[in-house]
Amino acid sequence: MTAVVALGGNALMRPGERGTAAEQRANLRRACEALRPLLNDGELVVTHGNGPQVGNELLRHERAAEEAPPLPLYLAVAQTQAEIGALVESELEPVAGRPVACLLTHVLVAEDDPAFEKPTKPVGPFYDEAKARELERERGWQVVHDAGRGWRRVVPSPQPLEVVELEAIRALIAAGTIVVACGGGGIPAMRRGIRLAGLDAVIDKDRASSLLARELGADRLVILTEVDAVFRRFGTDKQEELRELSGDEAEALLPELAAGSMRPKVEASVEFARATGHAALITSPAALGEAIEGRAGTRIG
Amino acid sequence: MTAVVALGGNALMRPGERGTAAEQRANLRRACEALRPLLNDGELVVTHGNGPQVGNELLRHERAAEEAPPLPLYLAVAQTQAEIGALVESELEPVAGRPVACLLTHVLVAEDDPAFEKPTKPVGPFYDEAKARELERERGWQVVHDAGRGWRRVVPSPQPLEVVELEAIRALIAAGTIVVACGGGGIPAMRRGIRLAGLDAVIDKDRASSLLARELGADRLVILTEVDAVFRRFGTDKQEELRELSGDEAEALLPELAAGSMRPKVEASVEFARATGHAALITSPAALGEAIEGRAGTRIG
Repeated sequence: MTAVVALGGNALMRPGERGTAAEQRANLRRACEALRPLLNDGELVVTHGNGPQVGNELLRHERAAEEAPPLPLYLAVAQTQAEIGALVESELEPVAGRPVACLLTHVLVAEDDPAFEKPTKPVGPFYDEAKARELERERGWQVVHDAGRGWRRVVPSPQPLEVVELEAIRALIAAGTIVVACGGGGIPAMRRGIRLAGLDAVIDKDRASSLLARELGADRLVILTEVDAVFRRFGTDKQEELRELSGDEAEALLPELAAGSMRPKVEASVEFARATGHAALITSPAALGEAIEGRAGTRIG
Repeated sequence: MTAVVALGGNALMRPGERGTAAEQRANLRRACEALRPLLNDGELVVTHGNGPQVGNELLRHERAAEEAPPLPLYLAVAQTQAEIGALVESELEPVAGRPVACLLTHVLVAEDDPAFEKPTKPVGPFYDEAKARELERERGWQVVHDAGRGWRRVVPSPQPLEVVELEAIRALIAAGTIVVACGGGGIPAMRRGIRLAGLDAVIDKDRASSLLARELGADRLVILTEVDAVFRRFGTDKQEELRELSGDEAEALLPELAAGSMRPKVEASVEFARATGHAALITSPAALGEAIEGRAGTRIG
């Protein structure tokens, strides 16, 4: 039995927090404790988001730009894999009672992915228009205006196609190691000839987690988020918690789900369920124990 | 046959460079090409320094400190493992023709290591005295004055005792993967109860590489640096290139070697040779091919 569990943003940072190491560690302590019901059951691979962390890191790159060269976005993603991976390792190992290791992970995308035609994902700090135009000229960035908040870089968010380090992840799992992989959706990359080339893009971490789970032939994909389950008519007084959805039912629900939030989680779950015949589970860390027993969360497929 | 090869600073950054990703990649391309003679011979583990990279990263943390919380030094070390590991992976894989993977690596040190009594290793940017005193008060740093250049943080450089992720590294090697590990000497850590705790310290990368080579039972430790070999009376008109040294001869030479430079390399080599009965090799990337055949470099033990 192998499970892939994707930690959402709230496992690392809560509203009002800035993302200090101490804050992230305290949040991870709770989140890792919540993983206990998954730990008796077999092998585990942990993935995680990196939104606020990569935002902080890009800001650091910019603010020091005159003294230390800013690194490309794909290396900032790599940096957050290490930052978060080190914290997960510290907090998960005592709960799991077995070794946890973090593997730097690249994820391949297609050169002709339509996302490259139309970058939509805002990353990094806000700028005034003059600075934004300068970055556009000097670094080839695409920038967009965000009403009231200023200008911001946008990057493509292509579909993940292949986890480069898959065999290494398999080898670690086989050795009884809990692997932290695909952090932040993985370092976006393409093959240029025989060379792996990082790309200035970001990959949705739920999609990447689903891809990894499918490639590993995992028995279970668990996507942890703020809410206990998927809801129909979420946020209205008629909201309805959904306990079980077939792939088709989940797909029919997609248009009403929030685009950058619950929708990719349900899409990723449907992809996993269809490819493997196993169910995916969407729930919160707090409800995970109940969800595994079918009394909470949303089971898809 | 397993070799551990430690890449020196010049494999990543050359004099006058600032450490852009493009510069580091171009340098690594040359360095990885130079590793070819080691690649036909069996398994390979690559370690590397991170001096300028962690300096840049700490500077980024400081310059953005009002907007994004500075991370502790041990996480900055982790970040450089990912930055450099991603670049090594891209450049080494095409030369090696087999998978390369970077594993986040912690290295345990002793709580009572005398280095904690007397931090000596300067890290990060220079400050004026007022700012330095503020950091001393607010973050508990130790700072020292460096004549003519300002104030700077100093941290301990304790002895590495154990590579935490050793079994994971073994599993990756057994799977035919070239492993990038112990970057920057590893993330310094202690066990606090059952929990791994990162420490604000730095570990000498040659010592950590020697420890890793010993723990793996490697057949060969190769330390790559700027010069082709160890010299007696280096920099004088009587300098003498040393082709072979016994452990005792190498030890007798230590006092005349540069403390932060050739001395730890020779010490690390002696430790490896004495523990394993195998020789260590100190040479430059350019001379490596000749050195393996005994026509260049310094063989110790």
